[in-house]
Amino acid sequence: MRLTIIGSGNVATHMAAAFKNAGHRLVQVYSPTMHNAALLAYHVGAAAINDLAHISADTDIFIIAVKDDAIAQVAGALAVHQKIIVHTSGSTDLDVLLAYTHKAGVLYPLQTFSKIREVDFATVPLCIEAANESVYTDIQQLAATVSSNIYSINSAGRKILHLAAVFACNFPNYLYGVAQNLLASHQMDFNLLRPLILETAQKVQEQLPVSVQTGPAVRNDEVTMRTHLQMLEGEPQLQNIYTLLSQGIIKNNNGRVGDK
Amino acid sequence: MRLTIIGSGNVATHMAAAFKNAGHRLVQVYSPTMHNAALLAYHVGAAAINDLAHISADTDIFIIAVKDDAIAQVAGALAVHQKIIVHTSGSTDLDVLLAYTHKAGVLYPLQTFSKIREVDFATVPLCIEAANESVYTDIQQLAATVSSNIYSINSAGRKILHLAAVFACNFPNYLYGVAQNLLASHQMDFNLLRPLILETAQKVQEQLPVSVQTGPAVRNDEVTMRTHLQMLEGEPQLQNIYTLLSQGIIKNNNGRVGDK
Repeated sequence: MRLTIIGSGNVATHMAAAFKNAGHRLVQVYSPTMHNAALLAYHVGAAAINDLAHISADTDIFIIAVKDDAIAQVAGALAVHQKIIVHTSGSTDLDVLLAYTHKAGVLYPLQTFSKIREVDFATVPLCIEAANESVYTDIQQLAATVSSNIYSINSAGRKILHLAAVFACNFPNYLYGVAQNLLASHQMDFNLLRPLILETAQKVQEQLPVSVQTGPAVRNDEVTMRTHLQMLEGEPQLQNIYTLLSQGIIKNNNGRVGDK
Repeated sequence: MRLTIIGSGNVATHMAAAFKNAGHRLVQVYSPTMHNAALLAYHVGAAAINDLAHISADTDIFIIAVKDDAIAQVAGALAVHQKIIVHTSGSTDLDVLLAYTHKAGVLYPLQTFSKIREVDFATVPLCIEAANESVYTDIQQLAATVSSNIYSINSAGRKILHLAAVFACNFPNYLYGVAQNLLASHQMDFNLLRPLILETAQKVQEQLPVSVQTGPAVRNDEVTMRTHLQMLEGEPQLQNIYTLLSQGIIKNNNGRVGDK
């Protein structure tokens, strides 16, 4: 297919690369910053533009991967070309595009992307929604060229997914950082924790989280929890986090004897 | 070496198996519950006992892997044999053993263990502390037969590590469960989130967490955060967790423009 990428951030970069590798033709890459457009365009053999007035209609799908609050404006500028327009946002309704075109769809990759790191796109869950069956089929065919994890998820479901992803990814990463800071303030290396972090994530690849919960809270080990709160003295925000998350674990496991 | 395992929980089970595989002789496995002692003893070719009065002195190291609040009592019963006694607890001082013996040490495996899942012990950080050089050398030699990640960490450092591990492992796992429940309450499968969870942990194997933080909080995307809090209406505990962790991310990244 002929694809046009609107955006040059992490999602745009990883999607463009995956589609290029799958044999699609990347027509243009748009970014308001020419440098960014050119960088990504160069990597995927596309033309770079920094003005939507220069967008080419010789494409099959416009893929919008910009900040959520810029999606509507971009869609408004693209609709005149009467091609399929998809956005890639977890928290944006399909309706935002439907205001401008009936050839509207969503292709939401449920993964965390950093420019610095390659992602195996074949395992990335791709969540699809479309305004009609014809558009759905086109998006699905495109998605199937890069991933084998394709789900049909409507706007309401996608919003839940996006919220769940914050709990499953953004918040754990923040907590990794808290742990790293605790170690750093006592001259200990983050390498000590890396195997633990990886194993914790690997465990739930087959098990459900609640069945593999470990730690003082699931054992209702009040002495250790009290000691930990004392160690966090002077860090009221961390104390609050410790207390709230421990209460959640205790509530989940009420009456159940946990593992050491 | 000849080793005696006191305990039959997750840590005892994984350590005993790793030592057995490394060629050590497991003399006895103790658990107050004979069934549990017998099960582990059978797997590692040891004798099972459920009474510390039947402990054999024909051993080199007693390895205590019981609940923290039972360590002192067990050490008291073992000290008469004048062999090395180590405990495996992250949050227990060496002093607890020193009250009973000078041949005291700690061998703390910084990993999360479940009986249901094999762990590659070779990558597990083993944190060692000992009452004197001779004991340290013995523990280090034992540790080196099962892991290449050996660290010398004193009781104060180990306590910090244990606290950090709660943030890096126990709390993220709880949040995985929150995410799973959100999906389940909307008939969506946890499989959707598994690649994201794994990638989040893999990212920090080479990067530092703060440099790969993603999500609405790091972008200071107030619209999305407000929407998420509305979606959590009726779940005040989850709203509190969402707010606290988002505030932490915002504070970390104050003024920094985050990735999408």
